[in-house]
Amino acid sequence: MADSQPLLSLDGDPVAAEALLQDVFGIVVDEVIRKGTSASEKVCEWKEPEELKQLLDLELRHEGESQEQILEHCRAVIRYSVKTCHPRFFNQLFSGLDPHALAGRIVTESLNTSQYTYEIAPVFVLMEEEVLKKLRALVGWSSGDGVFCPGGSISNMYAVNLARYQRYPDCKQRGLRALPPLALFTSKECHYSIKKGAAFLGLGTDSVRVVKADERGKMIPEDLERQISLAKAEGAVPFLVSATSGTTVLGAFDPLEAIADVCQHHGLWLHVDVSWDGPKNGVGWAKAKAHIAPSAPQAAWGGSVLLSQTHRHLLAGIQRADSVAWNPHKLLSTGLQCSALLLRDTSNLLKRCHGSQASYLFQQDKFYDVALDTGDKVVQCGRRVDCLKLWLMWKAQGEQGLQRRVDQAFALARYLVEELKKREGFELVMEPEFVNVCFWFVPPSLRGKKGSPDYSERLSKVAPILKERMVRKGSMMIGYQPHGTRSNFFRMVVANPALTRADVDFLLNELERLGQDL
Amino acid sequence: MADSQPLLSLDGDPVAAEALLQDVFGIVVDEVIRKGTSASEKVCEWKEPEELKQLLDLELRHEGESQEQILEHCRAVIRYSVKTCHPRFFNQLFSGLDPHALAGRIVTESLNTSQYTYEIAPVFVLMEEEVLKKLRALVGWSSGDGVFCPGGSISNMYAVNLARYQRYPDCKQRGLRALPPLALFTSKECHYSIKKGAAFLGLGTDSVRVVKADERGKMIPEDLERQISLAKAEGAVPFLVSATSGTTVLGAFDPLEAIADVCQHHGLWLHVDVSWDGPKNGVGWAKAKAHIAPSAPQAAWGGSVLLSQTHRHLLAGIQRADSVAWNPHKLLSTGLQCSALLLRDTSNLLKRCHGSQASYLFQQDKFYDVALDTGDKVVQCGRRVDCLKLWLMWKAQGEQGLQRRVDQAFALARYLVEELKKREGFELVMEPEFVNVCFWFVPPSLRGKKGSPDYSERLSKVAPILKERMVRKGSMMIGYQPHGTRSNFFRMVVANPALTRADVDFLLNELERLGQDL
Repeated sequence: MADSQPLLSLDGDPVAAEALLQDVFGIVVDEVIRKGTSASEKVCEWKEPEELKQLLDLELRHEGESQEQILEHCRAVIRYSVKTCHPRFFNQLFSGLDPHALAGRIVTESLNTSQYTYEIAPVFVLMEEEVLKKLRALVGWSSGDGVFCPGGSISNMYAVNLARYQRYPDCKQRGLRALPPLALFTSKECHYSIKKGAAFLGLGTDSVRVVKADERGKMIPEDLERQISLAKAEGAVPFLVSATSGTTVLGAFDPLEAIADVCQHHGLWLHVDVSWDGPKNGVGWAKAKAHIAPSAPQAAWGGSVLLSQTHRHLLAGIQRADSVAWNPHKLLSTGLQCSALLLRDTSNLLKRCHGSQASYLFQQDKFYDVALDTGDKVVQCGRRVDCLKLWLMWKAQGEQGLQRRVDQAFALARYLVEELKKREGFELVMEPEFVNVCFWFVPPSLRGKKGSPDYSERLSKVAPILKERMVRKGSMMIGYQPHGTRSNFFRMVVANPALTRADVDFLLNELERLGQDL
Repeated sequence: MADSQPLLSLDGDPVAAEALLQDVFGIVVDEVIRKGTSASEKVCEWKEPEELKQLLDLELRHEGESQEQILEHCRAVIRYSVKTCHPRFFNQLFSGLDPHALAGRIVTESLNTSQYTYEIAPVFVLMEEEVLKKLRALVGWSSGDGVFCPGGSISNMYAVNLARYQRYPDCKQRGLRALPPLALFTSKECHYSIKKGAAFLGLGTDSVRVVKADERGKMIPEDLERQISLAKAEGAVPFLVSATSGTTVLGAFDPLEAIADVCQHHGLWLHVDVSWDGPKNGVGWAKAKAHIAPSAPQAAWGGSVLLSQTHRHLLAGIQRADSVAWNPHKLLSTGLQCSALLLRDTSNLLKRCHGSQASYLFQQDKFYDVALDTGDKVVQCGRRVDCLKLWLMWKAQGEQGLQRRVDQAFALARYLVEELKKREGFELVMEPEFVNVCFWFVPPSLRGKKGSPDYSERLSKVAPILKERMVRKGSMMIGYQPHGTRSNFFRMVVANPALTRADVDFLLNELERLGQDL
C-alpha cells in the first residue's frame, strides 16, 4: 500500500494546493472583503433552516467532489452567512473587519501550531508574553502573569479557580468537599455568565451571591458589604468578587475603587470582567418576556477603553484587581477568539494551580529553558495561537491608532444619542456612558400612549417584528432585549471601526421605514 | 470628532484592505505552502529566545508602522516559526497541510462569526449538526447530541460534568458539597489529562482512581473492577470510566467491550477519549528521568481510525459509550482546533447541564425556531466556528479519501517498523498497533552493552542530544520521552498525509548521521 507517492492527490502537491488556495482566496476577496463590507449589499440573505440545508448540500458522502464543486460550496457558505463585517451589522459586540487582524489570522492558520511549548511555537510563546505585558501595562501593572483563553467565560472560570486555589491549595487534590462552603459575589447585571462557570467548577450556582445594581446597572458597594456579611452569617466563606466594566446591554461600569476597598477589607480576590462575549440577542435572555424577565444577564466588554486617555477613568481602580478578563475581539475587532486573562500575581500561581501535579518527578532534559513552555499554565493541552492577530494590528496602527478608534467610537455613539433625541418616535433607555446606545422605537400607533395599560405589552412586540423585517430584507441587523421591567428595546453597538455618521443615519431611517405601519 | 470619514485609514477601505491581504497571502503561499512543505528547506530555524526577541522586534509602540514593515513582520514570523506542515515534522500528533482544510479555515476567519445562534451563524449551525451526525454515525449511533469544543481536554471535562449532572442534577445548583464523594476511573496511561480536568471541575485529583494497564498500555478490566470495589468500600460513589483509544506515546487501545461490560454492570458513564491533544515532548512528562518516571501521561488520538474498514476493529465496542471525545485536528489534519464531543444522549442533557438556569423565565419571541441556537449547550459564550474546515475537507475527499489516508498511514507505519528491524542500532519499544512507532536509537558506543549497569542511564541521554542536534540543524523534528521504566525513546508519528517512504528513510538515515559519534 505505502509507496513513494503522496497519500492523496493534493497532499504533498504544493502546486495543486496553491491553485486551490488562490481560488478560494479570490472568492474571499470578492465576496467578503469587497461585497461583504459594502453598504449596497445585503448584510444577510435569510433562509429558513430547511431551505438552507438544501441550498448548501450539507451531506457528507462516500465520494469526494470536484474542485469546481468545492469552490461553489465556498461561495454558498459565504453567500448565506451573515456578514459581520458589514457596516450595517450592529447585532453583536464584535463587528467590522480589521485587515491587519485578518492578515494575522491567515498567517496563524497557515502555520497551524499550538502554544504549549517553545519548541514548536518559539515565535508565539515570546509574542504572547509581549502582548500580555502590554495589556497588563494598560491595566497599570509592571509585572504579573496571564494567558490567552478560548473566550471570556473560560477566562472568568480561570479567575475563580485561581482564587479558590490561592486560598485553599488543597482543593486541587482533595476537591471542594474538603473545603468550607464558598461564596463569590457579582452584580445582578452579570450573574448568568458567572453562574455557568460556578456550576462547571463544582461550586454550584448557589455559591454566587447576587449584589444589587443601581438604576444604571452599576454594582452597589454597600449591598456588596451586606451580601458578604450575610454569606458569613450563613457559614459560607467569601473568596471572590467579580466586577464588571462595560455590561453587555447598558454598558455600565461598576465602581471599581469602592469595590476594591471592600475586597481589601475582607481579603477577597477582585476579578474584573472587561471581556464578555455572550450573545445579547441570543440564547435565552433575549427571549425574556419584558414584564416577567429578571435582569438580563450581562457582562463586561469595556477593556479596550483603557486605551483611551479620555475615557479610561471609567475603569479607575482596575489596577487594584487581582485578575482581569479582557476580550480584544470585541471593541478592537481582532476576530474571534482573542481573550486574555491577566493576573497581578508574580508567584507562578497559574502553573501551580493548573500544572500537572507530578511535575516534581520530571527532569529538565530539554536543551532550552523549559520555563518558556506555557502548557502547564492552562487546563487545555493543545492551545490555539491567539496573539498574532492582535500583535500585528497593534504593530500596524500603534497604540495611537487603537486609541483613536476607541475615542471615535465614543464620539459616534454620542452622535447617535443626539440624533435620537431629535427624532419623534425614538426614546433613549438612558444616557449611555459607553458605546452601547439603548433605545426604543415607538411606532406611530403607540406615540403619546405611554400611560395606557397595555403600552408596555404592545411596545415589547415592536422590536421582534422590526427585527424579523430587517433580517428578511437583509438591510441591517441590530439586537434587542428586555431588561428588568423595561420592555424590549434596541441596543446599538458602535464597535465596527468603519462606521460613519451615514450608517447611523441609516439605522434610524430604516427603523422608521420598517415600523411606519405599526 | 466623528464625521463621515472611516475611523482609521484602512477601515472601511476595501481596496487598501484587499491590497494588504493580497500581499500577505502571497507571502503565505511562498513561505508556507511552497517552502514550508519542501523537504529541501529547514523544518525550523532555531534561535535562542533572547536572539529571537531581537529578530522579531516584538515591542508594541505608540506609533504604527508602514505597510512594508508589516509585511516584513509577517515574513519574520513565518521564517522563525516551526513548519508543522513540513514532511520532516514528526514532533506532534498533528502535522501536514491539508489545503481543503486550510481553505475552510481562511473562509472561517474571513466570516468571523460565533456559533451561538442561528441568527448570526445560520450556515454553521446547520453544518455543525451535519458534521456531528456523521461523526456519530461512525461511532455507531443513529441519534444523539454533541458540540465542538476548544480542544480534547475541554471535551473530556464536558463528559465528566455531564456524567455527574446526569446522576446528581442537584450538583449544578448546590455544588459538590451537596454530593457524596465521587470517583472516576481511568488507566495509568492517561491519568494526567483527566486529573487536570478533575481539579478544575472541583472534584480534586484524588477522585481519579488509576487503573492498571498491561505491558502494551491497555487498561486491565479486572483491575477496573477491583478499583471500583475499592472506591465503594471507601465510601465513594463511582460514576464514570474514561477509556482511551490510541494513547499518545504507545498508541494503545483500551479493550472497550470488556470495559463497557464493567460500566454496564455498575451503571457507570463510559467516556471514550479518542482525542488527546497534549504535547508529548512537551511540558513536563517528556522531561521525566527514565528510571524514576511514572507512566507518562497519555490519552487518545485514535478516533479517525473509525474511518478505516480495515482498522476500526481496534475500537470495537465504542458504540456502547455514553460520550466520545474526538479530535479530527490530529490524524485528519484539519488544523487546530477541531475537537468534537459526541453524546449518545437524546434527552437534551447538554443544554440542561450547561444552559442558563433561568431559561424557564424566557419567552420565545424570535421569528425562528430557537431550538437551533447552540449557545446553551456550552459553558463558553462566544464560540469559534470549527466545523467548516472538516466539512470542506470531507466534501472534497469523501469518506473514501479520508479512509484511504488512514489506511495508508497504517501501511507507512508498518514500512517504518520493517525498516527499523533491518538496521543495526534501532530497537523497537514494542510492535505498534497504531501509527505511533516507538523505538530507541542505540548509538555505536552502546551497541551490545545492554547488560551493563549504566546502559539505561546512558541510553536516556541519547535522545535529548540528538533532538538538540536536529533542531539546531533544522533537518527534522521528532519527539522523545521515557515511559515507565523505559529510557527516553523516540516516537515517530505517521500523521502527515504527504509523507512518503523517502521521508521515513530520511528519518532513519538522519538519526544515524546525528548519532554516529555517540
